[in-house]
Amino acid sequence: MVVTGGLGPTPDDLTRYAVADVLGVELVTDEAALTDVRRCFERMGRSMPAGNEVQALIPQGAEVLPNARGTAPGIVWEQDERMLAVLPGVPEEMRAMFETALRPRLARRAGASPYHRIVLQTFGMSEADIGTALRDLMDRDRNPLVGTTAKRGTIGIRILARGVTESEARALAEADAQEVRRRLGRAVFGEGDTTLEQAVGAILKKRGLTLATAESCTGGWLAKRITDTPGSSAYFLGGVVTSAHAQKTAWLDVPTSILREHGAVSEPVAAAMAGGCRERFGSDTALATTGIAGPGGATNSKPVGLVYVAFANASGVEVKELRLGEHWGREGIRDRTCSIALNLLRLRLSSDPNP
Amino acid sequence: MVVTGGLGPTPDDLTRYAVADVLGVELVTDEAALTDVRRCFERMGRSMPAGNEVQALIPQGAEVLPNARGTAPGIVWEQDERMLAVLPGVPEEMRAMFETALRPRLARRAGASPYHRIVLQTFGMSEADIGTALRDLMDRDRNPLVGTTAKRGTIGIRILARGVTESEARALAEADAQEVRRRLGRAVFGEGDTTLEQAVGAILKKRGLTLATAESCTGGWLAKRITDTPGSSAYFLGGVVTSAHAQKTAWLDVPTSILREHGAVSEPVAAAMAGGCRERFGSDTALATTGIAGPGGATNSKPVGLVYVAFANASGVEVKELRLGEHWGREGIRDRTCSIALNLLRLRLSSDPNP
Repeated sequence: MVVTGGLGPTPDDLTRYAVADVLGVELVTDEAALTDVRRCFERMGRSMPAGNEVQALIPQGAEVLPNARGTAPGIVWEQDERMLAVLPGVPEEMRAMFETALRPRLARRAGASPYHRIVLQTFGMSEADIGTALRDLMDRDRNPLVGTTAKRGTIGIRILARGVTESEARALAEADAQEVRRRLGRAVFGEGDTTLEQAVGAILKKRGLTLATAESCTGGWLAKRITDTPGSSAYFLGGVVTSAHAQKTAWLDVPTSILREHGAVSEPVAAAMAGGCRERFGSDTALATTGIAGPGGATNSKPVGLVYVAFANASGVEVKELRLGEHWGREGIRDRTCSIALNLLRLRLSSDPNP
Repeated sequence: MVVTGGLGPTPDDLTRYAVADVLGVELVTDEAALTDVRRCFERMGRSMPAGNEVQALIPQGAEVLPNARGTAPGIVWEQDERMLAVLPGVPEEMRAMFETALRPRLARRAGASPYHRIVLQTFGMSEADIGTALRDLMDRDRNPLVGTTAKRGTIGIRILARGVTESEARALAEADAQEVRRRLGRAVFGEGDTTLEQAVGAILKKRGLTLATAESCTGGWLAKRITDTPGSSAYFLGGVVTSAHAQKTAWLDVPTSILREHGAVSEPVAAAMAGGCRERFGSDTALATTGIAGPGGATNSKPVGLVYVAFANASGVEVKELRLGEHWGREGIRDRTCSIALNLLRLRLSSDPNP
């Protein structure tokens, strides 16, 4: 059983008391945990407030799970087949603690049957089309088990193989991974937790190319995603975010005549933004976005979800028109625009010999 | 009971079958749901793949919960005191469906005792310090119940009052909210779901001021957060993301001599970035960030987590040095830098009569 939240220092943080109650034991101060909480504050250059001492209280007989990201230590209690784990509620702390402290413990308990897991990440095919392409592989009685997980346009293919030995399981999983790659072709962009921006970064790095961005509707999110990757400054020179017409002209040399004639959300403006960005930054490649993310801003001819993404390199400029509709909302439209732009760059770079 | 996930169109999406099994009923096609799935594809300008038809299958006697964000309709089944709800696993779809379709249904079922809920959002005080300041209000036997929720540096204060009547509950909650505001002062920046960027946007809009951003370590995230708010183009002129020294000079007029003498991660460079940004965009205010988000890039004198945020307006430039440590990781450091920058702007604008 896994419980999350309520491990903080305030009076409404009652989880430790409830757990001690259920287990029928006292709460005791764990000295190592107390030191950890204190150190966490020291790292921030502060001394620990007295209120945080309760965070080192754990039920007698339980163990502490260290928290690498915050002050609340986790708690784990095991007896025979039973296990109770308490993780902090702050999502980033919970995730980190699950991965580093709880998952290995669960795997050890599960023990037994060797397995091997491969995840392939795809972009550009719908989940239903992938389901059709992989129907026989996804049969529920098969080994490996193949499944899909959709997350904002990115669809992951999970391959879980069991074997008598670890190496048999690995061979089975790898054979399936190869078959999935063959069937889905260029839709596959990476393995494991790889993100589109990491895949794009790896291609740029390998080919020694640089990138710059010019964003209107995505407002900096594209640059943010690219710079999520440590070391991205090796290939990402920078970006510009512009909203008004005048800023697009001042920062990206988009001709005022084009803006007047076609409006900011148009194919020619997207192309001019990408070209101007590449020129101004002196980068090998550039991406641009302009669109109507909503909920306001639509006109008769330009609905919410109408977006243009543009890619520029030495071969010229390519623009893609997207009609994303409005049902994903502002966040979904902006997020997918970033992904589609990154994917455009990925596909162009893997087929274009030009830098 | 609420179950999430496994409502997609691929063969590994087994939840509907499991639910029908448990309820001991057949799956039947819900025509309204089928129309919804079909419309969802039409909105994207595509026709529905045959594989998606299964998404309209629901257990006999159950009802459909419409999905505003994607193709998978939810399922709800009720009998006397028992209720089983199945929501899609895609987080954005799940959240939207919970809010629009499930929460009101649960509230109706819960019925009875009138209550009123107020949430106040704070930034800049630790959870422990807030716990100390509100200790008596957070007593668990009290009405209203007062609690805190921490999320990446932002701490929400939840006030839940029960009363004989709705208006009595509201009066109790409002009295507590007033007391919390009195005790926490300027740390409170908004109510409900208000984010820091929305609070900042509201202040800028009210005072008729414009903003521009210059980002190094946050790489566009600050601009992204500001533009999350619809209509932000009314006050946000745009932003620049720069990584290399040369780009800081080219785009923001940061003197090369300062970069050479102090390095890019320094107080004078942060100040020059904010000042240059304000100048170049012609904005009333500007924010700048420069720092070491890690995991690489640290030196002996400049550890991971060392960040400078700067605010510029007509009164001059103010720089804040942050030592965030490395335990939050790259994402946590970048995220908190954005929040601290936004909070700096908020505090300056609420105390500075100058534009």
